[in-house]
Amino acid sequence: MTDILDLLTWDNPVFTAYVVAVAVTVLKVMGQGWMTVWRFQTTGRGLASPEDAAKGLLNLAPDPSQLEHDDYVDRSRRMHRNDLENIPAFWVAGLPFVLINPAPGLAWVLLYGFVAARAGHFWAYATAKSHEIRATFYTIGSLIVIWMAVQVLWVVLT
Amino acid sequence: MTDILDLLTWDNPVFTAYVVAVAVTVLKVMGQGWMTVWRFQTTGRGLASPEDAAKGLLNLAPDPSQLEHDDYVDRSRRMHRNDLENIPAFWVAGLPFVLINPAPGLAWVLLYGFVAARAGHFWAYATAKSHEIRATFYTIGSLIVIWMAVQVLWVVLT
Amino acid sequence: MTDILDLLTWDNPVFTAYVVAVAVTVLKVMGQGWMTVWRFQTTGRGLASPEDAAKGLLNLAPDPSQLEHDDYVDRSRRMHRNDLENIPAFWVAGLPFVLINPAPGLAWVLLYGFVAARAGHFWAYATAKSHEIRATFYTIGSLIVIWMAVQVLWVVLT
Repeated sequence: MTDILDLLTWDNPVFTAYVVAVAVTVLKVMGQGWMTVWRFQTTGRGLASPEDAAKGLLNLAPDPSQLEHDDYVDRSRRMHRNDLENIPAFWVAGLPFVLINPAPGLAWVLLYGFVAARAGHFWAYATAKSHEIRATFYTIGSLIVIWMAVQVLWVVLT
Repeated sequence: MTDILDLLTWDNPVFTAYVVAVAVTVLKVMGQGWMTVWRFQTTGRGLASPEDAAKGLLNLAPDPSQLEHDDYVDRSRRMHRNDLENIPAFWVAGLPFVLINPAPGLAWVLLYGFVAARAGHFWAYATAKSHEIRATFYTIGSLIVIWMAVQVLWVVLT
Repeated sequence: MTDILDLLTWDNPVFTAYVVAVAVTVLKVMGQGWMTVWRFQTTGRGLASPEDAAKGLLNLAPDPSQLEHDDYVDRSRRMHRNDLENIPAFWVAGLPFVLINPAPGLAWVLLYGFVAARAGHFWAYATAKSHEIRATFYTIGSLIVIWMAVQVLWVVLT
């Protein structure tokens, strides 16, 4: 097997692609938090804690109904939850995947394919596309993470 | 302290055990998502988004009641949430733990002990065993992660 | 660019600061789980699964009302969820950030600033301070993670 230390260099295009995919998906996850903020601030609905319905700079017209469930706001929280169910596993599976020295073409397809699949999932979820469309993007992303973990196990254990 | 670069090799059994534990728990987390899919597909209940209760290839007999809370489906989501509350912390604490060069026997017990504890937690939660049994597995896994983080801090700060 | 292997050493204060920040925030996330346990054990309220309201060593006076929503217990779960929406992204963005060899002073401010911001967020959320105070700590932590990811992309892609 290739020496791990030979792979930990910016000259390794697979390692660089991994770092780019990590940074982009980190921004995606953080952005999802801000999408939730945007949604409850602009609608004044779907707040999660009692103290958020008190008067303040972020809430000039407080009302107890602001604490009621709101699908528009909760949708962003569900998107966030789905991110957390998939993206951290990608982050942590990706590093040993890089270190088993996969074929660059395959690695490129899996790493950027995951980013693309999650972008598609974001689009389908945010615009409330059919369950079938959203599930397709979810499935692609999930299978990519599973592939990486299985290939890592295969290489390490055999 | 041992040079970090000397530890980043597939000849280091602690590093290899860490990678195996990561890959297995990644598959566990991804599998939990598919368990939720299985549960709402086979029961047609506990769907999370309004558009999921529309007619489509994944939903041939749509009904508004499909959006109601369902413990069988929600249980899988709660298992997933518990995973996310514990497993990513294990992933990220494990790497510096490997890099402080712990005793291999201890590392082996902690790394595979965590995997075993989470397997027990999965079994206890999926089959609705008593709170006491599930809490025992949760506690073992949690204490292992805490141990690793404390040992890392101890070695790095002293 | 500096060779990655030259940065992976305990003599690199930025790498060491990253490991310390990771270990401290790992303990914070694990501790949040125990805060939830503490809250539902001491109040006997806000339990999440039907079987938790059965008689047992952890529940000597079971009652169906123990499964009702309880803000005191749910608050700890919301704090945990907010952790999961922010801290794993910090963990994974921090490592490539260390590997692009940032200025030590900047790195120190960002890494420990994130830890401090999350400590403030914990305090504001646990004591139900105003939305404005909690949001300020959230914003600082979020912007730090975004900064790290953007700087990584900038250095790697240019």
